[in-house]
Amino acid sequence: MTQIAILGAAGYTALELIRILLRHDDVEIVAVTDLHEGQPHVATIHPSLAGRIDLRVERLSPAEVAARAECVFCCLPHGVSASLVPHLLDAGARVVDFSADYRLADPEVFANWYNQKHADPDRLGKVPYGLPELFRDQIVGASLVANPGCFPTAAVLGLAPLLKAGMIEPRGIIVDSKTGVSGAGRTPRLTTHYPECNESMSAYNVGRHRHTPEIDQILGTAAGKPVEVIFSPHLVPMDRGILTTTYSQPVGDVNEEKVLQTLRDFYAEEPFVQVVDHFPGTKDTMGTNFCHVTARVVRDRVLTISCIDNLVKGASGAAVQNFNLMYGYDETAAL
Amino acid sequence: MTQIAILGAAGYTALELIRILLRHDDVEIVAVTDLHEGQPHVATIHPSLAGRIDLRVERLSPAEVAARAECVFCCLPHGVSASLVPHLLDAGARVVDFSADYRLADPEVFANWYNQKHADPDRLGKVPYGLPELFRDQIVGASLVANPGCFPTAAVLGLAPLLKAGMIEPRGIIVDSKTGVSGAGRTPRLTTHYPECNESMSAYNVGRHRHTPEIDQILGTAAGKPVEVIFSPHLVPMDRGILTTTYSQPVGDVNEEKVLQTLRDFYAEEPFVQVVDHFPGTKDTMGTNFCHVTARVVRDRVLTISCIDNLVKGASGAAVQNFNLMYGYDETAAL
Amino acid sequence: MTQIAILGAAGYTALELIRILLRHDDVEIVAVTDLHEGQPHVATIHPSLAGRIDLRVERLSPAEVAARAECVFCCLPHGVSASLVPHLLDAGARVVDFSADYRLADPEVFANWYNQKHADPDRLGKVPYGLPELFRDQIVGASLVANPGCFPTAAVLGLAPLLKAGMIEPRGIIVDSKTGVSGAGRTPRLTTHYPECNESMSAYNVGRHRHTPEIDQILGTAAGKPVEVIFSPHLVPMDRGILTTTYSQPVGDVNEEKVLQTLRDFYAEEPFVQVVDHFPGTKDTMGTNFCHVTARVVRDRVLTISCIDNLVKGASGAAVQNFNLMYGYDETAAL
Amino acid sequence: MTQIAILGAAGYTALELIRILLRHDDVEIVAVTDLHEGQPHVATIHPSLAGRIDLRVERLSPAEVAARAECVFCCLPHGVSASLVPHLLDAGARVVDFSADYRLADPEVFANWYNQKHADPDRLGKVPYGLPELFRDQIVGASLVANPGCFPTAAVLGLAPLLKAGMIEPRGIIVDSKTGVSGAGRTPRLTTHYPECNESMSAYNVGRHRHTPEIDQILGTAAGKPVEVIFSPHLVPMDRGILTTTYSQPVGDVNEEKVLQTLRDFYAEEPFVQVVDHFPGTKDTMGTNFCHVTARVVRDRVLTISCIDNLVKGASGAAVQNFNLMYGYDETAAL
Repeated sequence: MTQIAILGAAGYTALELIRILLRHDDVEIVAVTDLHEGQPHVATIHPSLAGRIDLRVERLSPAEVAARAECVFCCLPHGVSASLVPHLLDAGARVVDFSADYRLADPEVFANWYNQKHADPDRLGKVPYGLPELFRDQIVGASLVANPGCFPTAAVLGLAPLLKAGMIEPRGIIVDSKTGVSGAGRTPRLTTHYPECNESMSAYNVGRHRHTPEIDQILGTAAGKPVEVIFSPHLVPMDRGILTTTYSQPVGDVNEEKVLQTLRDFYAEEPFVQVVDHFPGTKDTMGTNFCHVTARVVRDRVLTISCIDNLVKGASGAAVQNFNLMYGYDETAAL
Repeated sequence: MTQIAILGAAGYTALELIRILLRHDDVEIVAVTDLHEGQPHVATIHPSLAGRIDLRVERLSPAEVAARAECVFCCLPHGVSASLVPHLLDAGARVVDFSADYRLADPEVFANWYNQKHADPDRLGKVPYGLPELFRDQIVGASLVANPGCFPTAAVLGLAPLLKAGMIEPRGIIVDSKTGVSGAGRTPRLTTHYPECNESMSAYNVGRHRHTPEIDQILGTAAGKPVEVIFSPHLVPMDRGILTTTYSQPVGDVNEEKVLQTLRDFYAEEPFVQVVDHFPGTKDTMGTNFCHVTARVVRDRVLTISCIDNLVKGASGAAVQNFNLMYGYDETAAL
Repeated sequence: MTQIAILGAAGYTALELIRILLRHDDVEIVAVTDLHEGQPHVATIHPSLAGRIDLRVERLSPAEVAARAECVFCCLPHGVSASLVPHLLDAGARVVDFSADYRLADPEVFANWYNQKHADPDRLGKVPYGLPELFRDQIVGASLVANPGCFPTAAVLGLAPLLKAGMIEPRGIIVDSKTGVSGAGRTPRLTTHYPECNESMSAYNVGRHRHTPEIDQILGTAAGKPVEVIFSPHLVPMDRGILTTTYSQPVGDVNEEKVLQTLRDFYAEEPFVQVVDHFPGTKDTMGTNFCHVTARVVRDRVLTISCIDNLVKGASGAAVQNFNLMYGYDETAAL
Repeated sequence: MTQIAILGAAGYTALELIRILLRHDDVEIVAVTDLHEGQPHVATIHPSLAGRIDLRVERLSPAEVAARAECVFCCLPHGVSASLVPHLLDAGARVVDFSADYRLADPEVFANWYNQKHADPDRLGKVPYGLPELFRDQIVGASLVANPGCFPTAAVLGLAPLLKAGMIEPRGIIVDSKTGVSGAGRTPRLTTHYPECNESMSAYNVGRHRHTPEIDQILGTAAGKPVEVIFSPHLVPMDRGILTTTYSQPVGDVNEEKVLQTLRDFYAEEPFVQVVDHFPGTKDTMGTNFCHVTARVVRDRVLTISCIDNLVKGASGAAVQNFNLMYGYDETAAL
């Protein structure tokens, strides 16, 4: 039994995390923090948890958190995590961090894309990136894991095996992603106000989205050489789900069956990646930790199409998968 | 050709009003006001108007508005209207007011439900209620019209003919209404944040919604005796549309065909009310100024089911219909 | 460990049932039947199950089913169940039946509402109605349970405690229900074609819906006297969820707090009913076996508002809850 | 005043066409045909037209149609049009054809992509393609116009000016399109059954969609050399709207401002194309005949992002725009 604390309880990733952990036989949630006044019940903030969790939201210092919990899930904004995580680790806790703070290896790249100096730069490049399909060995037993971004997860799971196999060019890869609205978080804004984004679709942050350097970096690791993607996210009127379509140039003699077989081989032992022949829909993965992926070759371009639930495999499900690996539980427990 | 000003340009009713007026051969929009800084283009606030209207949002006094426009559509919050409308009228403008300020006849009822003293109490009870199906004679040529609330429109169009005919009891009428999210306005709030209200349905303000006294009053006028409805609004995950189901007790020997025939007779000459035999859907009226209504008798209860587009017949379409009557244009012009 | 068979695998209730049972530690799904040609994989019919279940859909006789499975979940159409269930029981299997075939106590009422003679009339009136909140004692250890309809579940959970307590009149109860589209099943029809029902809301089968006699019967049992409800279902553009608003007349001196307290007392020990003070949304119960319910008193009417997920507490979750009670597992296992 | 007939009344394009034509001062709809039994009212098939059109659906021969109407809008399936249009033209009618039958110049390309021999091959290559922004001169006064496909309209309006200007390479252009569900037509199928496609997104017909050769051909005309696009359509859970994101390689020294200025110059006089700086949403064009388009340069790729309403600028609005040009009415009449 592992005692768990969750920092930053008000958002959708925290809600999804609690839902999953409530099904986990080997964990107990002992503390939940947020900035709310007056210590409301968690179920006051998330009415769907009524009768399912009996905890109040508290304001706690890292030391207080670490005194109660062995493992801390940080669902905090970028920048905030890096100011707290060192204290949590020093106090003996282990951490799964949802923010981008420990994903990028290079503090300068972080500074360029996040417009701030990194608060804990020495740790960068040494924290396992929490995508077990690529980095399982580093995650097992780790004390800090950087939980991946939702878009990078969908893009990397489609492309990394082909880059590793040298089947596609590392340059000029197009990553056209479509996401449900929960990816924008729980703070009301005009762009995510129901009558604005319902029945509408639009691109946003094209070429400027902060997941770009993360995709570059992880794919670069897979390719063994620099990768620069053209990444364009789109907002889709649905709660959850990411569908990512990638376009890349084949290297040498490539056909559809070879591409699919490369994916199948790569993921043969993976519990949460399904290589399918049909075109997957995001709903096929909704509420699950699965990624469904397929590929096509069209007019000498290699296409991959991958689907995940952005709140599960793209966030809280991956976090629990990482937690399971860190602590030696069955990797699929509660998932 | 009538010169038009629109006060309060940022909301959905103003947008819908502009869309409709752009199709009107006999009007010209000459001024649009709002509190935005820096006089942005209307199309900056409402991107769907790009290339369709070449006006900037201004901050204007009532005198400045009246100097430019003959007719003013006030899309302002409750309370604000009553502080401006007297000045507009004094300056010679005629006004279609979207707020609730001139709908209720009794300043005390207003004060009770809107938690504020009315700024222009002497005018109450003398302003035509802008539902032409009941009050056309008063609207023709009027200088000020109180545009009805969206819920009252749907409820009254179903019930008034039956109350007038003495077919149903005026007491204990249940009005169960379902509305799309645009009815909540354009200001982002958690309850109308996409991932909160999408794929969900809930009741709100049951027994306390401010349209309650308005429904009571207009139905009371139709019945010739006091009416008190039990009114429960519900939020539905769709952009627009109101579906209202009412339940009342029949008086005397009533059957389904009699009820339907009473509705058909009442609306025989109305351009925008369709009495249908099937169950209407809100989409049947979407984007139109129509109300579709049907009725059933079930186990000695009379049911009416009525649909409107809350932004058109429930707001801006009705406003243009009223405007047409005020100015002697074809009642259906632009609608 | 209990061996499970599922009859009628292609629909949404079967899919939801499989999802739940895959989380159940004490069951093994050993057979899945349907009329599909060519014994496709279950995951071919339900792509979201890819990699999660390795079974093919078969055509099996009741004897073949009973030879493999101890417990059979029948997700079959009305009429078909009653022709198979006797054979399953004779062959020694126990059955949770999703159809309406064993819900009504009176074969004549069944014949009137379902337009067919009942194939197994002698059993009617002796089969436990699978709503544990009212009939737990009868369900424990039963060999056949009639799983409730989705609308009756939502309506009864709101009203039964008040009728039992004699707080509301049993006559003239209005049940205004709103359901997501999955309630209409998986067979494509024009009314559930996306561009027809999306962004629209409508009533259907008002006064004629087959859940009417079921609600009457179960509420009549609770009240100890005949109940006749006015039941009007509405279709809402969302996947799942039922919100039911009821209106009834109080008996004697009733106020909101008394009504709420009666509900709280009644459900104090229930694992899946939450009495809440706020207005619950269907999303609060989405994907869970919970019912959230509240009440209001408005102008001398008692209102209850209850929410469930029609596919979980309204179907497959309730079925697993019943199964758990039948077999002595923890009532909340897998839920 | 022009007498209009509409062939194939049951679908969404016919409904949208009727809505638009009802606002057109210079047309009268005199005949509407379809295969329905028993000559139902048009408003029986399309309840939203209740009280707005008083015509029955008939079965008429081309000669009967031409005897009544000067202009015929053919909303018929591919293959059917080409068997009727010659008879309509021979009988003296002029035709706007919604099918793909007269869009492609080469009967062999048609045969390859539509799996059928063309019924009227001699006319191919001589029929104006009804995109006024590129082919206005040919459309003015024409007796037959091939109304464009919805995807080609969105793709071509973004790319053609850049190809004409020689700013992008004609090879390897990626066209990633996202469409609302009405694009799939009104016939119920599992893929467009509400609970299947709601809250989900998926790709379909990637590399095989029949709009591919149409995009190739029209872009080839613009470029003056062969174009082959990689076209991947995606289904989005919304009623209407197409968002198309294209990726191409620049030729020479290209930057974002140059690309945007090229678009602005090209469309400076166009009534229905708006070049915008922000990222347009499909809702900005919903219910209108407008296309909103923008462009970006990201890591040496040129991106265009264009939005239309697939039923208006992508079908029925374009048809009326073409009709207006054919008959010398104001090009924007009723639009």
